Amino acid sequence: MSTSIPTLSRRHWLSMIGKAAGGGVMYQAMSSLGYAQESNYRGPLELSKAKRGGSVVILGAGLAGMTAAYELRAAGYRVQVLEFQERSGGRCWTVRGGDSFTELGGAKQTCSFAKGNYINPGPWRVPYHHYAVLDYCKKFGVRLEPFMQVNYNALVHNSKAFGGKPQKFREVQADAYGYVAELLAKATNQGALDQAVTTEDKEKLLESLRGWGALDKDFRYVASHSVSNHRGFQIEPAGGLMPVAQYSTPIEMSSLLQSGLWNKINDGHLMEFQTAIFEPVGGMDAIAKGFEKEVGSLVRHNCKVTRIEQNDKGVTVTFSDTRKGGAAQQVKADWCVCTIPASILAQIDIQVGDAMKQAIQSLPYGASFKVGLEFKRRFWEEDERIYGGISYTDLPIGQISYPSTNFFSKGPAVLLGGYQYENAHAYAYTAMSPAQRIQAAVEQGAQLHAQYPKEFLSGFTVGWHRVPWINGCFGLWTDALREQHYRNLCEIDGRIVLAGEHCSYIPAWQEGAILSSLDAVKRLHDKAQATA
Amino acid sequence: MSTSIPTLSRRHWLSMIGKAAGGGVMYQAMSSLGYAQESNYRGPLELSKAKRGGSVVILGAGLAGMTAAYELRAAGYRVQVLEFQERSGGRCWTVRGGDSFTELGGAKQTCSFAKGNYINPGPWRVPYHHYAVLDYCKKFGVRLEPFMQVNYNALVHNSKAFGGKPQKFREVQADAYGYVAELLAKATNQGALDQAVTTEDKEKLLESLRGWGALDKDFRYVASHSVSNHRGFQIEPAGGLMPVAQYSTPIEMSSLLQSGLWNKINDGHLMEFQTAIFEPVGGMDAIAKGFEKEVGSLVRHNCKVTRIEQNDKGVTVTFSDTRKGGAAQQVKADWCVCTIPASILAQIDIQVGDAMKQAIQSLPYGASFKVGLEFKRRFWEEDERIYGGISYTDLPIGQISYPSTNFFSKGPAVLLGGYQYENAHAYAYTAMSPAQRIQAAVEQGAQLHAQYPKEFLSGFTVGWHRVPWINGCFGLWTDALREQHYRNLCEIDGRIVLAGEHCSYIPAWQEGAILSSLDAVKRLHDKAQATA
Repeated sequence: MSTSIPTLSRRHWLSMIGKAAGGGVMYQAMSSLGYAQESNYRGPLELSKAKRGGSVVILGAGLAGMTAAYELRAAGYRVQVLEFQERSGGRCWTVRGGDSFTELGGAKQTCSFAKGNYINPGPWRVPYHHYAVLDYCKKFGVRLEPFMQVNYNALVHNSKAFGGKPQKFREVQADAYGYVAELLAKATNQGALDQAVTTEDKEKLLESLRGWGALDKDFRYVASHSVSNHRGFQIEPAGGLMPVAQYSTPIEMSSLLQSGLWNKINDGHLMEFQTAIFEPVGGMDAIAKGFEKEVGSLVRHNCKVTRIEQNDKGVTVTFSDTRKGGAAQQVKADWCVCTIPASILAQIDIQVGDAMKQAIQSLPYGASFKVGLEFKRRFWEEDERIYGGISYTDLPIGQISYPSTNFFSKGPAVLLGGYQYENAHAYAYTAMSPAQRIQAAVEQGAQLHAQYPKEFLSGFTVGWHRVPWINGCFGLWTDALREQHYRNLCEIDGRIVLAGEHCSYIPAWQEGAILSSLDAVKRLHDKAQATA
Repeated sequence: MSTSIPTLSRRHWLSMIGKAAGGGVMYQAMSSLGYAQESNYRGPLELSKAKRGGSVVILGAGLAGMTAAYELRAAGYRVQVLEFQERSGGRCWTVRGGDSFTELGGAKQTCSFAKGNYINPGPWRVPYHHYAVLDYCKKFGVRLEPFMQVNYNALVHNSKAFGGKPQKFREVQADAYGYVAELLAKATNQGALDQAVTTEDKEKLLESLRGWGALDKDFRYVASHSVSNHRGFQIEPAGGLMPVAQYSTPIEMSSLLQSGLWNKINDGHLMEFQTAIFEPVGGMDAIAKGFEKEVGSLVRHNCKVTRIEQNDKGVTVTFSDTRKGGAAQQVKADWCVCTIPASILAQIDIQVGDAMKQAIQSLPYGASFKVGLEFKRRFWEEDERIYGGISYTDLPIGQISYPSTNFFSKGPAVLLGGYQYENAHAYAYTAMSPAQRIQAAVEQGAQLHAQYPKEFLSGFTVGWHRVPWINGCFGLWTDALREQHYRNLCEIDGRIVLAGEHCSYIPAWQEGAILSSLDAVKRLHDKAQATA
């Protein structure tokens, strides 16, 4: 039994700090030593109490707006929030049976999903390193369950390859890795890489390639028990005297390369999609409701902001009540946190400097559409043993994501039948009517799952450029745009600061919205405290 | 919008079958056409009703025994089950606070875990393609939740590399793939593989390598946004005017290769560990309890079988009651399904032919030990953002698996602090006392998590060769052993048939036990029906 602990001096030291001072100090020490330092999120904000009872008007009750409301109220500010919609949450939005939505152009959908079924038209996942979202979830008691991102038994599909027949994720990955390992082993053994790899490293490389790529003793990727244990068997090992196992046959290398399918299995390697990744139980809006429980009383709904003015004393926001109508109304406050998306803010009369104005007007919004489809039963589970995860296709629907919840249950279930943020497809599909979009998703999905036509019940779709309160999905920054406008968008202008995912380096993600808000609020508070 | 469906003729045909004949027929058709045919499991057994009221004695109330009891009773047999232990389930076993266990050698442990916490000393996962287990779970209402196998934020550790400092899974994977891609791109660009790869395929290969490996435009794997998006950032992108993101620096290739850590991140590619993979909510024994609800009334506990005799009329099993004592008792039946592990059966007087006897006596059992450790809090989640999944180490504990349930909860939690089935370590640790095993697991685990000593509460450990009712963990077949003995072990001998994971090609897995039992029962039934 090994009891030697070669390099534990730092850890021992940490342990002693921990013992002496409790977890908080230990975490601080860990951060300063290189652990857990990746995020800019530093735990809950602890703003020093406001010197005097200042007031803040917050525009927008999405996650950025509600974060600002929560933190500023805690710091002692008088807070009110104006929200355009009749609900809070913004893009943190879940559609269930009975919910209606009218898109730009006038098409109205009423969702007819069965009780418990839903679609998240906006964000639908919470990565493990989105610390701020996770911490607010924990604080507000929002229950999270694992989101199944990668599923080895899901499909990858190129309508122009393999006669249009979908392939299994596990087969494509095993074969791609196998051929890569085989080719690299060949080059290495032939001495082609002798300048790049030392003799000592070469041995380790070959040994690793053999294991990872399931190569045989001669470094070939050919049908074998090991290969089948990666890509799946033709007939699986079983019990007793059942028919004996049969190996499966790898896809031929050239076909695999030409299909491009290898490029469709890599999402799970990206930070934003790596396991562990979560979703709120029952729908993404559980997070919005978590915030609402805290700050809901500060929010006034149905307020259409038409003008934002400021002087050196304070901010005046003019708005109309979209439900009650009547004359324009005004709210005055010392400070303003504006989380209205740039796509909408560009259309509003806002009294800020040219730099911020240009930034607001220069940011395009990414297109995206989603289609939720309800089916009579979980045929993907029952017939095909696909439990959650995502199938990818070159068709305009882009992907099919199977529900990560209520596995093995009976009755109707909803999958994400299309989610595309590639601009050309996304615009084309947003241009269609909802009924057309749903029909197209069913027709295309049938190329991956023959059961679609027979099992289909109903659909619900959102094309984000047709969403009246945002006219797009997320701030579509380029490096050049960031260089020119990002700082100008985020700097406090007089008594106004902007927040939201568009004011972040994590566009389209809730973490971006919340971090942007925490940063904006902290800077605004500092300025307010410094302002006598 | 594409509505052409190039290769759907087969699928259309399936759809029509489905419409005309319902799902069952469709599934049959799919199987015969090449879908879903990988498994030998063909759905629930439907044995024709037994001609006359035959009787069967089943030895062992593990999953194999209870499967046999369930299916044979349904077919009309009179069934009784003799079980050595005072509980059913066998290796499908969960230990909770208050449970006691006395191992060979006499050491008794009483588990002191908090309510709701547990350790599964035996099987702990259910892969998506273990169809039989999943179908019985569905039939018996056993709730399953995703098991987190792969976690990119978990650790890989070589105590002799990097000064003993654990590395992140995501860093090792990103860097390994990056260097493989870089080396293969280099060889390809230098023409070293011109004989193996056509010019057309070469372009596709290079394009795929660049994406997969996060290479730059010159096919180099160097610090970049893309690389950091795979392996993690030094400082992550954030919101507003928070500090700007900083790239992380890849591990140097030679150090990575020499560390061997690349070989520790591949388990998730193997069929048995691929997502989706599940665990029963609340502990593995939920499956045993599911069976027990159905056939519990047929089981007699505390029966130590001492002799199994047969003639052409029937089977006689002699046993003693380990609790009540008294004289030896006997059960007679027409047939016997014996699921007693070979390791125990080899010590029992069983009247079968030499071939089966030799098979029973020739099968060694694999060693394995597990250690469950309870800590005051989920420091792996709270401090290190590791939500489920497995950290791997070269230390004898082999791995640390964090709980896949009750994420983000407060209070004490149990992780799997050691699980080793590599024989040398497993025997060495089984030879230790439970207290020593637990102490070693805590000391070794502290090399991965400095919080161990401060947060540790208690442990519970099982070394399988010290388990009185099995003396080992699972049937350890080799190709040579299978060649010589497998068929002899599985063939019906007169009126006796064996079943259990040791009679399967899926050793150590519950699927093996159940499939073996389904096959044995089917053959026994056929023979019984053919026997006038």
